[in-house]
Amino acid sequence: LRILGLDPGEKRIGVAISDPLEITAQGLEVISYTEPEQALKRLYEICLDYSVKKIIVGNPVNMDGSRGSASELAENFAKSLSSKTGLPVEMLDERLTSGSAEKTLIAGGVSRKKRRKVKDKLAAVLILEQYLALSETRKNRGVNNDK
Amino acid sequence: LRILGLDPGEKRIGVAISDPLEITAQGLEVISYTEPEQALKRLYEICLDYSVKKIIVGNPVNMDGSRGSASELAENFAKSLSSKTGLPVEMLDERLTSGSAEKTLIAGGVSRKKRRKVKDKLAAVLILEQYLALSETRKNRGVNNDK
Repeated sequence: LRILGLDPGEKRIGVAISDPLEITAQGLEVISYTEPEQALKRLYEICLDYSVKKIIVGNPVNMDGSRGSASELAENFAKSLSSKTGLPVEMLDERLTSGSAEKTLIAGGVSRKKRRKVKDKLAAVLILEQYLALSETRKNRGVNNDK
Repeated sequence: LRILGLDPGEKRIGVAISDPLEITAQGLEVISYTEPEQALKRLYEICLDYSVKKIIVGNPVNMDGSRGSASELAENFAKSLSSKTGLPVEMLDERLTSGSAEKTLIAGGVSRKKRRKVKDKLAAVLILEQYLALSETRKNRGVNNDK
């Protein structure tokens, strides 16, 4: 069983998948769509093909933590996806993953245009990696109190 | 009160600090040292100057999760630091932050040589950001169960 990570946009959805041990995340595909039902159908197929047990959806909340239209779109999409697949769907605040990626790319001297392309390609992977890191920590394998 | 993030190496220690609200992380300095006592002294000064309340130390565990000599070095350093400052010190598994950064830079077409420089510069920041993201989630501000 695997975990699916999604970066949902208005026209495209980035898709990443974990290994069965839930340690690593890798990019799977980018779904282009005009009708949401198209995207839901493709995601349903992926869930069956890869024995997905849970779906993580990136939540593009505003910088101050409030929910704008993009966040509402993502939440509605997550609800539809939950109904369609019958799987548990969790939202994950994507401010930190996208912020760290941006900072890393700027430090690497990558141009603004290239950064946007990289973000599109990697966003779902980074969201899923973040979720896996959080899960690992919850299991007390990641953080140890030293004092 | 702020949180300090450290990426400890044999010769250099990357230092990052949070804002007082514990939301963002920024790079502060890189401490070069020959004797550990020098580094401890400088870190103690930083803790006083910035009213640090907690220190997060990156733990370079091996890819399979086992602890090698680098990890032992970091743990010993964390213990010394805790004694010196009297502050709580936590270790944070740095496999995920450095792995994501590497993946992001490769996707951005950044050369291996440049990647190493960027990692040195950003490692402490990414460790601290990861910790802040984990804390936020523990407070249930980041992850919401949708189903």
